[in-house]
Amino acid sequence: MSGNSFGKRFRITCFGESHGRCVGVIIDGCPSGLQLSLKEVQKELDKRRPRQDKISTPREEEDKVEFLSGVFKEYTTGAPLCMLVWNKKADSEVYEKYRFKPRPGHADYPALIKYKKFNDYRGGGRFSGRITAAFVMAGAVAKKLLKILNIEILAHTVEIGGVKSEKNPTLEEIRKITYTNAVRCADEKTAALMKQEIMKAKNEGDSVGGIIECIILNVPVGVGEPVFDNLDADIAKMLFNIPAVKGVEFGAGFNSSRLRGSENNDPYIIKDGKVATTSNNAGGILGGLSNGMPIIFRTAFKPTPSISKKQRTIDIEKMTETTIEVKGMHDPCVVPRAVPIVEAVAATVLADHILRSSFINIGEKME
Amino acid sequence: MSGNSFGKRFRITCFGESHGRCVGVIIDGCPSGLQLSLKEVQKELDKRRPRQDKISTPREEEDKVEFLSGVFKEYTTGAPLCMLVWNKKADSEVYEKYRFKPRPGHADYPALIKYKKFNDYRGGGRFSGRITAAFVMAGAVAKKLLKILNIEILAHTVEIGGVKSEKNPTLEEIRKITYTNAVRCADEKTAALMKQEIMKAKNEGDSVGGIIECIILNVPVGVGEPVFDNLDADIAKMLFNIPAVKGVEFGAGFNSSRLRGSENNDPYIIKDGKVATTSNNAGGILGGLSNGMPIIFRTAFKPTPSISKKQRTIDIEKMTETTIEVKGMHDPCVVPRAVPIVEAVAATVLADHILRSSFINIGEKME
Amino acid sequence: MSGNSFGKRFRITCFGESHGRCVGVIIDGCPSGLQLSLKEVQKELDKRRPRQDKISTPREEEDKVEFLSGVFKEYTTGAPLCMLVWNKKADSEVYEKYRFKPRPGHADYPALIKYKKFNDYRGGGRFSGRITAAFVMAGAVAKKLLKILNIEILAHTVEIGGVKSEKNPTLEEIRKITYTNAVRCADEKTAALMKQEIMKAKNEGDSVGGIIECIILNVPVGVGEPVFDNLDADIAKMLFNIPAVKGVEFGAGFNSSRLRGSENNDPYIIKDGKVATTSNNAGGILGGLSNGMPIIFRTAFKPTPSISKKQRTIDIEKMTETTIEVKGMHDPCVVPRAVPIVEAVAATVLADHILRSSFINIGEKME
Amino acid sequence: MSGNSFGKRFRITCFGESHGRCVGVIIDGCPSGLQLSLKEVQKELDKRRPRQDKISTPREEEDKVEFLSGVFKEYTTGAPLCMLVWNKKADSEVYEKYRFKPRPGHADYPALIKYKKFNDYRGGGRFSGRITAAFVMAGAVAKKLLKILNIEILAHTVEIGGVKSEKNPTLEEIRKITYTNAVRCADEKTAALMKQEIMKAKNEGDSVGGIIECIILNVPVGVGEPVFDNLDADIAKMLFNIPAVKGVEFGAGFNSSRLRGSENNDPYIIKDGKVATTSNNAGGILGGLSNGMPIIFRTAFKPTPSISKKQRTIDIEKMTETTIEVKGMHDPCVVPRAVPIVEAVAATVLADHILRSSFINIGEKME
Repeated sequence: MSGNSFGKRFRITCFGESHGRCVGVIIDGCPSGLQLSLKEVQKELDKRRPRQDKISTPREEEDKVEFLSGVFKEYTTGAPLCMLVWNKKADSEVYEKYRFKPRPGHADYPALIKYKKFNDYRGGGRFSGRITAAFVMAGAVAKKLLKILNIEILAHTVEIGGVKSEKNPTLEEIRKITYTNAVRCADEKTAALMKQEIMKAKNEGDSVGGIIECIILNVPVGVGEPVFDNLDADIAKMLFNIPAVKGVEFGAGFNSSRLRGSENNDPYIIKDGKVATTSNNAGGILGGLSNGMPIIFRTAFKPTPSISKKQRTIDIEKMTETTIEVKGMHDPCVVPRAVPIVEAVAATVLADHILRSSFINIGEKME
Repeated sequence: MSGNSFGKRFRITCFGESHGRCVGVIIDGCPSGLQLSLKEVQKELDKRRPRQDKISTPREEEDKVEFLSGVFKEYTTGAPLCMLVWNKKADSEVYEKYRFKPRPGHADYPALIKYKKFNDYRGGGRFSGRITAAFVMAGAVAKKLLKILNIEILAHTVEIGGVKSEKNPTLEEIRKITYTNAVRCADEKTAALMKQEIMKAKNEGDSVGGIIECIILNVPVGVGEPVFDNLDADIAKMLFNIPAVKGVEFGAGFNSSRLRGSENNDPYIIKDGKVATTSNNAGGILGGLSNGMPIIFRTAFKPTPSISKKQRTIDIEKMTETTIEVKGMHDPCVVPRAVPIVEAVAATVLADHILRSSFINIGEKME
Repeated sequence: MSGNSFGKRFRITCFGESHGRCVGVIIDGCPSGLQLSLKEVQKELDKRRPRQDKISTPREEEDKVEFLSGVFKEYTTGAPLCMLVWNKKADSEVYEKYRFKPRPGHADYPALIKYKKFNDYRGGGRFSGRITAAFVMAGAVAKKLLKILNIEILAHTVEIGGVKSEKNPTLEEIRKITYTNAVRCADEKTAALMKQEIMKAKNEGDSVGGIIECIILNVPVGVGEPVFDNLDADIAKMLFNIPAVKGVEFGAGFNSSRLRGSENNDPYIIKDGKVATTSNNAGGILGGLSNGMPIIFRTAFKPTPSISKKQRTIDIEKMTETTIEVKGMHDPCVVPRAVPIVEAVAATVLADHILRSSFINIGEKME
Repeated sequence: MSGNSFGKRFRITCFGESHGRCVGVIIDGCPSGLQLSLKEVQKELDKRRPRQDKISTPREEEDKVEFLSGVFKEYTTGAPLCMLVWNKKADSEVYEKYRFKPRPGHADYPALIKYKKFNDYRGGGRFSGRITAAFVMAGAVAKKLLKILNIEILAHTVEIGGVKSEKNPTLEEIRKITYTNAVRCADEKTAALMKQEIMKAKNEGDSVGGIIECIILNVPVGVGEPVFDNLDADIAKMLFNIPAVKGVEFGAGFNSSRLRGSENNDPYIIKDGKVATTSNNAGGILGGLSNGMPIIFRTAFKPTPSISKKQRTIDIEKMTETTIEVKGMHDPCVVPRAVPIVEAVAATVLADHILRSSFINIGEKME
């Protein structure tokens, strides 16, 4: 397990387990002088909390962030910024019985083999979705940094369990509506249908997946690095590190493979004295570099693997077949809670690449 | 441009430009004692060469690989293994006129801004598809290493310009048929239709895209690293570093977002005394770790941006609108030539993760 | 400040400030299955604590280590291992007056310029010797890992304020005597003289420096990496990261530059059926690789810069000259407390290189 | 062997062997727009060439540098800059007989164990001093970059075989005299004595070592990174990566351990309206950061291990004791040729840290 860091300039290292003492993250490379309060990080964390309605886990997660280092008098010092949330007492008993009965769709089986029974299996341990609290804390700091350059990150749910809106929401709708409903969808009608779909699955002891779209505005031209740290490559990498992600596409994505070059290429024009393109099939990235247009990508999440329906599995000690019913406090759909996680991950990658771009003097703008 | 390396144990660093002197790669971390001949690397490079038929560029690329270091008496020494192909004299004149007229769909515009006019714009410079020759050379060595563990990597074209086969080919068909036709499709009938589609686009001065599927067999259980170096995350990262890639999905991918948990979870069974799953929606990866089932992913390529059809663009010096017709020796579809590149990239990532897996003693098996 | 990690396989990241909430460290890459108790780490930390005698700071530092992650039922899980010690309430008032009056010999002045007044100046902040508690915690885990291979690390004070022993202590003396006296010297008579020297300086409001020697036994042949991660290079790097270190030499060190090749080369012999050398001027390292002989190096520490004697300095706000008397609870000599730090640093580097050595299967030996 | 890269922003990766095809280096992260000619790199390489006098090897090394990538129309492009020198045909026959008879003081024995007989043993392979040609090429580019900030690096020989000058040369003497004599000493009288000492050792079939001092002028305040990438730590690391280095000290170095704090601390004063110190025992670095004073360090080199005098060694295949006389074209003292290598290494580390210092806008100064 030596892969718990990401980034070259805004480098994050995360730690903690689902039922261990805490979940935390260190940011190494955040410039000194960034104004930062607990409240700002808490606000992002709160977006990720299970809502007290029926579509999410009834588990209580208070998740109050604390700074352990790197912030002094509400400004970053330039030293490693360590943040964490303490875990509440969790009931780990239930996981004892799953220990040698791997839950289908979970990392239980490969983790058991890899760590030779020493891994903390309680609550999924290091593979739990709870780990993403660390992503959100880091993302909150990244967002604050990006705000200096006026960069805005907007994620929203576009599909759940096959339910999707017929029209694309405007930026204004995404900004205003997304976080007002439980499913984080920018279209209220569709939101209601999505909620229904989740409830239906839940009532059947089942779960659903979905798709999140993310739009990043005001990224300067030229951010990203050839050949192996393409901006889209790094964003994709981090998205696939979110549990349950099975697909990522930028701009026209999979559909671009069905277009002709003459349809897919985005023609350049001059607009308000600036370079622009008339379409955005590229999703704002060409050759791994931002081209000044909005960065757009979609991320596909599989349905929550923890379901109470009976499933086939094995007893790995006895090497016999058996069944399992995963009871517990699971979200019947992870998508709504993943919306701020997608934003956080995008912010983290972008902060790293902005700081790597020597032609952008963020320090100057901070003063 | 400080992102030209990938990997932590099997670390590759690439260099060279499309119309510079050469394209090369260094592998740092290849174990000593791997039997390796030029012929083996050449064989992989040859798969990437433009074929002398009408669907690919008429440009001649001999691409004879040379070892500059790290191989002694046909065995790797453990020292950095540097390989390259020299560039043939290329006609760079034509690129002078594009210099300030960015080609739509290319990296020209952001590269110009990022490197302040100092980047080598000839033939796309560092953003050219030609760079992928380095990926293939590195991949050839990675494949040789993986062969020790009996790991096999099979990529094949599954869709071009919207044309796809109705049935999935068997592993045997993929092994036997893929490299016998120009489009690298494991189904001969579909291959013929794909070829037609490419020719049609070409004759119209246009281009098409497509989708490549890749299957990796015999990966041991537990390969990959939480939390930020998930096996799928690293594979996805490298795929997005291939020019023209716009989407990546593992297993059921985007479609898994429309399945119920009970449909998408892969039930565990005992088969021939071993752990297996009855389906493979996970695509062989759970929680970022290989689970012993075949690793399966699909990669979407956009249509070649270089087309001879007239397109709108701008003159960036004058800041006026204009048009461009990109003449030259361009593949009307990059997909067929990308098949060995996808394999190479997968092999490289896997070799890195295998060497990171302390529970796999590859050294022992090499003796 | 983006340089707070070290190591490639056993990678440590440290955080915390002298007067902040805590000082901590994360180890990423410690294999799963290492038996590890708080007591073992505490034992190493206690060696670093100021002793309750007159030669060290009267400041009380309890320094009780806590595990925040990565240990489950007294075994490492393979996940990031986060450890910390909480800081006791410290009196930071006194540092307000030094804020713009840089203490000679301290990092105050360059830190002020680098972090633009945002750095946590209290108690030296990130530049305080207190940071080395993190080194010792990481080193304790590294030592436990190295013990599996029977590797032993023995540091001891060989010189303080110019006082040194006339004879070299035996390994047995180093093992038995070093930690029985306040100055960590393996020769009791010399220890008494060193203590006198420290007290003399202390009484004059002054301080002294010294030299620590470290011997590492039972390192397998071939550990280390050419060309840029030589074993001695990495050990030296980490030693220079300890505050107050001004010189490092291996084997015959500076004196080897005055020997003839015929004197300095260590002749090979066969001893008890094994390869050995008759002398050890190389200090156990050739070409950056361990050669099987004991690794030996010496580290020079400058006298503590904090002294109560009046010194010249400047007021950086007013840009005028002034004087300073640094009152507070400072060790008049850092050397005794640095002995376990040198050991910790050596252990950390070695653990990293051992895990990088694919020919050493530590996992096998852990079972 | 996965340690052939150094640096985070100005990252170098080296490759090649003594008797292989070439010795080369890639710089990843050199900014675009740096004016750079082959001539400038060649000039530095020429300083490292054996001189055609009696004190150095009679071996002919032409060492003409070539750029393989990253330079276009005499400016760096921002892409990886690959440079190499081709090896002339070398007589490798002689090394066959040493293959299993390790030369005392060389890496032969640990390399044989580590690489299991697969390493390229000819001419020392990857452990040869010839590898340092790569350091010098990289250093030449770094120097060019540092020149923009007016940073100057001056190394000179201060001791050979125990012979040293009685007085310290002035900066002017170092600049003017160092490269005018064969031993690279800034004092002509001492240079003559050093030369005598070398000739004496040579005539006896023996060798001598020595000490090089290096001074770096005009480094801005605050360069370097706490906690693990201290500027002195990184410089020391790279120095120890030079073959034959056994000791490194900064400022007063080992001697500072014998001074009182009141003697060793460098008092701050205001000089010409700027902050300065009256002494420079710190060697220009405090807390791992540059403090604006000249950076000064000394590096100790052991005598060349290759000597024609008879030495004891073993036959590792037969495990018997035997003797060896190393005939060949060896420098009886590596110090004179190491002077430009020390400069190169210092330049490389400094370029990396300057580019990591977000408060220094080198791009702006390049325009």
